Amino acid sequence: MANEIMITLPEWVPDFLAQYPSHIEETKDRMRFVLELTRKNILSKTGGPFGAAVFESDTGKVVSVGVNRVMPLGISSAHAEVVALSFAQKHTGHFDLGGDQQPEHQLVVNAQMCAMCLGAVCWSGVKSVVYSATGQDVESITGFDEGPVPEDVEATLNARGISLTSRLLREEGLEVLKLYVQEGGFIYNARQGE
Amino acid sequence: MANEIMITLPEWVPDFLAQYPSHIEETKDRMRFVLELTRKNILSKTGGPFGAAVFESDTGKVVSVGVNRVMPLGISSAHAEVVALSFAQKHTGHFDLGGDQQPEHQLVVNAQMCAMCLGAVCWSGVKSVVYSATGQDVESITGFDEGPVPEDVEATLNARGISLTSRLLREEGLEVLKLYVQEGGFIYNARQGE
Repeated sequence: MANEIMITLPEWVPDFLAQYPSHIEETKDRMRFVLELTRKNILSKTGGPFGAAVFESDTGKVVSVGVNRVMPLGISSAHAEVVALSFAQKHTGHFDLGGDQQPEHQLVVNAQMCAMCLGAVCWSGVKSVVYSATGQDVESITGFDEGPVPEDVEATLNARGISLTSRLLREEGLEVLKLYVQEGGFIYNARQGE
Repeated sequence: MANEIMITLPEWVPDFLAQYPSHIEETKDRMRFVLELTRKNILSKTGGPFGAAVFESDTGKVVSVGVNRVMPLGISSAHAEVVALSFAQKHTGHFDLGGDQQPEHQLVVNAQMCAMCLGAVCWSGVKSVVYSATGQDVESITGFDEGPVPEDVEATLNARGISLTSRLLREEGLEVLKLYVQEGGFIYNARQGE
């Protein structure tokens, strides 16, 4: 049996990052960056229509990016959020982005987290999450299943010291999801009680 | 920024696997295998007190194993279930272990899934899950947080075509969790609304 698995970002990522400053101050600009990242992943056919980035909350430093890599890597947990959080942890050298020695970290993602990624956020150490399109948007536009997400996501996160900003630039977020459908993107994991 | 992350199993895994047959028929024996795997991870100090394996449901073929690797790898999502499912997907060559070309797969884990891993199970394609110790056992013995798990885990899984067997060899499962505490294992991610 294999003894290792490699989680990779698409080859275009370094060139993409080179077009942006190393720090992005405004939250809306962080979201625009993430929406462009997601659009690039769709148009490059390097994964599903989801993108995420981890920033230092105060300085706006881009700590890591992630995109959905489920189909290219053949790993069902390679959602954008898990990928971005894992790279942030690799870059900072610690599994807890909220540790004592760390500046505060923020996760920005183009769409509301599925059940798995909500859990992943809870364990990551980020202090805030920002998303654009809602889980309902994702399900109605793309057909992707969000899974067993608790009813009150904000309360769930708040209970763990994580703040939530929802629906930031939602209209732009919807356009990105629609682009995936227009491009004929494949909807995996669509089984629901089959 | 780094462009890749390596998810590895502990170095002792191949020797461990060599002590067992390639196929394990009885479900209880599959659990005993997983509990021994978990015990080995604890005693080797190669991660938290959680182990998992993916089997072909009918033949009992051991498709993959996973152990908690959060601290050694510095990645908060490297829970045993996510690791085992990812390796199973790598070995079978597909992100969907429930695809048309696949035999049915089963995940066996020493303790109930946290919120993240419950979501990960939903996306993995496995058709059945078996666990030993409960989430309450984990929280009361070790202090690890289970996160926002839905009230009725079985119904949640059933709704996605996944069956659940709970509390199999629970007494033995409890002993393994207690061993971690006895060995002075570190409880990370213990923050709850700090």
